[in-house]
Amino acid sequence: MRTVRTIEELRGELRGEIGLVPTMGALHGGHLSLFHAARAENELVVASLFVNAAQFSEQSDLAAYPRDEDADARLAEDAGVDVLFVPGAGEIYPPGFSTWVDVEDTGAEGAARAGHFRGVSTVCVKLFNIVRPRRAYFGQKDAQQAVVIRRVVRDLNLPVEIRVLPTVRDDDGLALSSRNARLSREERARALGLPRALAEGAQAHLLGGDAVAATRAALNGLSADYVELIDLDGVTILASAARVGATRLIDNVILEGELT
Amino acid sequence: MRTVRTIEELRGELRGEIGLVPTMGALHGGHLSLFHAARAENELVVASLFVNAAQFSEQSDLAAYPRDEDADARLAEDAGVDVLFVPGAGEIYPPGFSTWVDVEDTGAEGAARAGHFRGVSTVCVKLFNIVRPRRAYFGQKDAQQAVVIRRVVRDLNLPVEIRVLPTVRDDDGLALSSRNARLSREERARALGLPRALAEGAQAHLLGGDAVAATRAALNGLSADYVELIDLDGVTILASAARVGATRLIDNVILEGELT
Repeated sequence: MRTVRTIEELRGELRGEIGLVPTMGALHGGHLSLFHAARAENELVVASLFVNAAQFSEQSDLAAYPRDEDADARLAEDAGVDVLFVPGAGEIYPPGFSTWVDVEDTGAEGAARAGHFRGVSTVCVKLFNIVRPRRAYFGQKDAQQAVVIRRVVRDLNLPVEIRVLPTVRDDDGLALSSRNARLSREERARALGLPRALAEGAQAHLLGGDAVAATRAALNGLSADYVELIDLDGVTILASAARVGATRLIDNVILEGELT
Repeated sequence: MRTVRTIEELRGELRGEIGLVPTMGALHGGHLSLFHAARAENELVVASLFVNAAQFSEQSDLAAYPRDEDADARLAEDAGVDVLFVPGAGEIYPPGFSTWVDVEDTGAEGAARAGHFRGVSTVCVKLFNIVRPRRAYFGQKDAQQAVVIRRVVRDLNLPVEIRVLPTVRDDDGLALSSRNARLSREERARALGLPRALAEGAQAHLLGGDAVAATRAALNGLSADYVELIDLDGVTILASAARVGATRLIDNVILEGELT
């Protein structure tokens, strides 16, 4: 694996059919499943590692975001990544940068985090233009992000296929997230209320009931930013975000359809 | 020349190094100079003809915009265009379209026409992604537009070179514009006050004076939306917009540097 830090260096590495996995580092099993899928489907696998300040609406969240490039590089290499792109902030947002990609109506997750999807959309369009991948890989855990990116790609006629891979969970059912490391043992136990409530919602839906209401009823004291249904190209997803102490977690389950 | 109306048809025509000339039709000598430059510098010349509703802030201006596809097609073919792309509105903005490219601080022209450069930037990014040109051609007359498009291309890492060609003028000095057709003979005579005032401004600059103040002083009763200096990659441009009757005209001259 080669690690490159500038767009120019990166361009020197590009060849063949490319799979891109955009990440903010702090890699876990969810990212690894994206690397493995990209490895299986493309000639060259490029992973980006860039903590995109533009998509953080809370400075404390940005400051607390875990960073360990050496550990990330080992995980990426072991998972078959060919090129790790680790740009500095000035490489992505040089002085005078002033162009933003904005998506209207980004749902509850967009409403809860002002400017978040603007930052996500902008950095993804930049990465797609820099790397020119045939396919780019995202996790189902960030379902609304996948909806937004597919919309941007369609609306702006970008020639890239957006692949969405299933959420990877710990044995206890908690969706893997870089933010899980911030949870105390007691908080982690409470955080399990989120996947459990979503499972209750999915169960209720299966029985013809109201998934959102059932999820809300099952949250068991957890404070949810929202519980909502998301449509991802015909796949119906039940999604929620909850705060556990100072940490905000998101999760979702599929109610109807299959990710392809 | 082939005329195509869908993105799919267009893609079937693309080959080699492509020059793109985006237009809204109502072609005049300014457009022809762009076609000729594109013809000289590329293997394939694609011109688009699309009256982009998203960039009109006034519905009356959109409704009054001249349309004559047959005449435009003849002019384009004679000027060496290989492929004329004439999409319907639904091909560019299909139902559910909701992604916009936004540039902060678009100067006086952007301030005078809310949403104008958002519409311009969005349709240009789409056309660049659809056509994948090596070079795209714009007129100096729309100097602020050229500044904005170059900024978008740089900020979003689009692999296209933006070529800006000198303004083409009628014998009396009026910059060619699709909107000139709307001027009565009396209005046209008054409209000449705009290039004359800009020439006064350039003359004052040459003598070490204040170009903006000299332009304003020379407007001779014409009502200007603004008189401002624009920086286009190191080229200093003196630009103004004025209303003559119901018609809004823009024009500019170079004070320092050369367009390349």
